[in-house]
Amino acid sequence: MFSSFAALTNISKLARAEVRKILDSIDTVLVDCDGVLWLENIPIPGSVEVINRLKEIKKKVIFVTNNSTKIREELVVKAKQLGFNIDKEDVMSTAYLAVSYLKNTGFNQKVYVIGSKGITQELESAGIQHLGIGPDIIQTNLANAIDNFRPDPEVGAVIVGFDEHFSYIKLLKAATYLSKPACLFIATNTDERFPTSTDLVVPGTGSIVRSVETVSQREAVVVGKPNSYIAEALINEYGIDPKRTIMIGDRLNTDILLGTRCGFQTLLVLSGVTTLDEATQKKTSNKKDDKDLIPDFYLNKLGDLMQFIH
Amino acid sequence: MFSSFAALTNISKLARAEVRKILDSIDTVLVDCDGVLWLENIPIPGSVEVINRLKEIKKKVIFVTNNSTKIREELVVKAKQLGFNIDKEDVMSTAYLAVSYLKNTGFNQKVYVIGSKGITQELESAGIQHLGIGPDIIQTNLANAIDNFRPDPEVGAVIVGFDEHFSYIKLLKAATYLSKPACLFIATNTDERFPTSTDLVVPGTGSIVRSVETVSQREAVVVGKPNSYIAEALINEYGIDPKRTIMIGDRLNTDILLGTRCGFQTLLVLSGVTTLDEATQKKTSNKKDDKDLIPDFYLNKLGDLMQFIH
Repeated sequence: MFSSFAALTNISKLARAEVRKILDSIDTVLVDCDGVLWLENIPIPGSVEVINRLKEIKKKVIFVTNNSTKIREELVVKAKQLGFNIDKEDVMSTAYLAVSYLKNTGFNQKVYVIGSKGITQELESAGIQHLGIGPDIIQTNLANAIDNFRPDPEVGAVIVGFDEHFSYIKLLKAATYLSKPACLFIATNTDERFPTSTDLVVPGTGSIVRSVETVSQREAVVVGKPNSYIAEALINEYGIDPKRTIMIGDRLNTDILLGTRCGFQTLLVLSGVTTLDEATQKKTSNKKDDKDLIPDFYLNKLGDLMQFIH
Repeated sequence: MFSSFAALTNISKLARAEVRKILDSIDTVLVDCDGVLWLENIPIPGSVEVINRLKEIKKKVIFVTNNSTKIREELVVKAKQLGFNIDKEDVMSTAYLAVSYLKNTGFNQKVYVIGSKGITQELESAGIQHLGIGPDIIQTNLANAIDNFRPDPEVGAVIVGFDEHFSYIKLLKAATYLSKPACLFIATNTDERFPTSTDLVVPGTGSIVRSVETVSQREAVVVGKPNSYIAEALINEYGIDPKRTIMIGDRLNTDILLGTRCGFQTLLVLSGVTTLDEATQKKTSNKKDDKDLIPDFYLNKLGDLMQFIH
């Protein structure tokens, strides 16, 4: 975006005037949450101060998360507890986006949900009926479960998000609804796994989505990062100007890729999953796809911006 | 294979002497079950007579099925009840193949199984310990389930087959075991869905495998059709000569593709999922991959061969 800066510029090393120039070119700050603002329940040092200061200097700050398990109110509660100045309207969660996508199509049927209350509460707020939430397993045997399943003819969409109760019979039901070509198919995000502090591998929504896509032989509309639907929603709902917007995140293949695709400026912070080595590799790579993963700027952590904006 | 015949030749239209020539060129007959020999529990007319006659005229007949839910003995019981002359040694099921693959590596650890008794009974026959079979769901919540999961350090392989109890926590466990690079990863087959007589879509093993592959970021060794491991096993265990072998099946992307890949002759029967139109489309297609899906021969049903071999 900034022809005056090389890609992957360390903001910390710039002169105050240069950083001021960058800040002046921005109206809207899109910020990922986990790995940028906090790690699990612990704020990353300085992030609270930077976000609140950006709001004081009249930047529009929007929290953009792929997490579909929380409704916006819950995320607001968590962020406020950690000290962030934030309102419900400042949050773009994938549960909200999935429902907003449905509403934009004029949808008035029922939704079969593989997911959690994050999704069903957003549906209820929008007055859309749903089914499927919660545990659903084969009690006796498959033949019996098939005999007992009466598809609801009013279902007109399937939303797939994170669901710790994901099961074979849910897969069967989703695929059956999706066999009607008119049935909409929306996924919140495609992150393959959650970052964890243990040796366990905790599957993310992506591994559930891929399963439903395989059996239904259809591709889901993905509303989360890095898919550009989110940019449409941001432009529609907040009237943002992509050129005067920066995306701040800790992941190359979601946050930074979203930014590149949408024409946002991009800032990688190294407080989450990506290391500087990984980002540098993308810069020196010859692979065409890697070009979209190179951020304009990087910082060790968001808090390091504070010296330029106090 | 037969330069004297065009691809997709209708055997019924050939002269008796020509069919005799084909039969004389064959020692081994590999035959798919569902859609060729029977549909669910009903034999396809004439299949019993043809199979039994082929054995009488000293052809080696091997039943090759992607079904992983039955052990070989169960398939033999079903086939015998329908009138087929068959022994356990004549059956190549994917449950058996998965275990034979493990044995060939000199495996002496435990196996985490996403699958059914078809697999675990074959493992037990081979003296290999296993865990994971049966229902496994999150009783309280995910955090609690994660806390309670103690991976078994002796697990050295994950086998994924058809499992009506497939669940999120099974996905988490499989992915955790697979995060050890030395852990083997075997899938019985990748069929996306089962053929059914209802409007329901019944997910097949492929949709489960894809989910495990996505979260583990690894590719499974698939032992079922159309993967060529089965040919290795057939050559190792039965000493078949690929050039003197014919694969008979009702599916282009499993049965016929396997045959093409392994240098078998191929016969499509139209009594299962593939129509003549679909096969003809592959013949006239310009797509490179479609070439491997064109059978040498076709018949409306296997029973139509009887007129040439009585």
